[in-house]
Amino acid sequence: MTPEEKLKELGIELPPAPNPLGSYVPCVRTGNFLFLSGMLPLKDGKLLCTGRVGESVTLDEARRGSKQAVINALAVIKSELGRLDKVSRCVKLNGFVASAPDFTDQPGVINAASEFLFEVFGDKGKHARAAVGAYVLPLNAPVEIDFIFELAS
Amino acid sequence: MTPEEKLKELGIELPPAPNPLGSYVPCVRTGNFLFLSGMLPLKDGKLLCTGRVGESVTLDEARRGSKQAVINALAVIKSELGRLDKVSRCVKLNGFVASAPDFTDQPGVINAASEFLFEVFGDKGKHARAAVGAYVLPLNAPVEIDFIFELAS
Amino acid sequence: MTPEEKLKELGIELPPAPNPLGSYVPCVRTGNFLFLSGMLPLKDGKLLCTGRVGESVTLDEARRGSKQAVINALAVIKSELGRLDKVSRCVKLNGFVASAPDFTDQPGVINAASEFLFEVFGDKGKHARAAVGAYVLPLNAPVEIDFIFELAS
Repeated sequence: MTPEEKLKELGIELPPAPNPLGSYVPCVRTGNFLFLSGMLPLKDGKLLCTGRVGESVTLDEARRGSKQAVINALAVIKSELGRLDKVSRCVKLNGFVASAPDFTDQPGVINAASEFLFEVFGDKGKHARAAVGAYVLPLNAPVEIDFIFELAS
Repeated sequence: MTPEEKLKELGIELPPAPNPLGSYVPCVRTGNFLFLSGMLPLKDGKLLCTGRVGESVTLDEARRGSKQAVINALAVIKSELGRLDKVSRCVKLNGFVASAPDFTDQPGVINAASEFLFEVFGDKGKHARAAVGAYVLPLNAPVEIDFIFELAS
Repeated sequence: MTPEEKLKELGIELPPAPNPLGSYVPCVRTGNFLFLSGMLPLKDGKLLCTGRVGESVTLDEARRGSKQAVINALAVIKSELGRLDKVSRCVKLNGFVASAPDFTDQPGVINAASEFLFEVFGDKGKHARAAVGAYVLPLNAPVEIDFIFELAS
């Protein structure tokens, strides 16, 4: 099953690639690598929720945000490469979670992103990862994730 | 126009490469990549300003700091490679902005870095980017940026 | 002297590679690069200490945590590659330090990691680095470090 077929099975339609929030580009291809910019839980141009996890945002909401950031990443890849199966490996994720001072389950939030990548890409979706608690994120987003993908040569 | 000619036109003279603040090196070259350490807004060994953006640091000051971090990055590249035109692409920036709890315009701060790279390198300066709000940064700096550059093979 | 001999001389025995805290893998090999996930100061499944440096954690404790994160990274490499001397270069470290609002010596904390890598790998252990103050880290860890290594081809 291709990643696109898997997305269809899951009932997920990729949105247009989100516009950068500044003077940068959504991704850069270099050699066999695709570096993606930090993705936010934007849907139709609006954040799914705002604030810190453990304050105004629940774990479940943050997990949905985390998955939405991956959906936006897939939209960027699709827009750049035309086809998701040109990805030969998801290499690395950095997940930043805007956190209440005592919220320490950043891995639980970013797991939703990791599990979704595994669902879509199978073993190729298994990646290294860092999950970190941030003080505050752009637009008051609860989650930001950037990505490195490897491309089939 | 070479990047050096562009800098001259902008009236910018590159300083000596800044010394690392610890037991590491300013950059590592591996294959066609140059990984740079986190750069701070140091000028003549002093930070341009200190503290969090939205508290003791204004957006404008932070933007100047952001540009100064890039100037220091260019000094590192020049020191390592001799010539800036050996850079074939600016690949990725991670910009950390020490932020007041309600300051959410990290992209606005890091845009000053991104725009300056575009000024100096043209299309080769277009990069992927993550901008994140940090709680506190080394030496109480308002901004820290690390970089990945691609080198012409 | 091989890295393993150096570790023996230092009286350090590598533990089993730590289990990921979620749906990801400890490392991904791609081309000549090995990307490691964020490592915490876990020993025998427990954090050496918890909290923010400058609050409940001292600089010395954080430095020990920083070194323990590297020990766990070496355990991951050993488990993946069988031998540490397949590392041809330590390329990049990102060190996140859970920090009190006025703690600005993140470089001092991550230096313990950098110095230890230099002890074990010699010149091959010299790396680029970013050190950043985080608000809060997974499991309330004081330090998290991720790594990029280059492998001999």
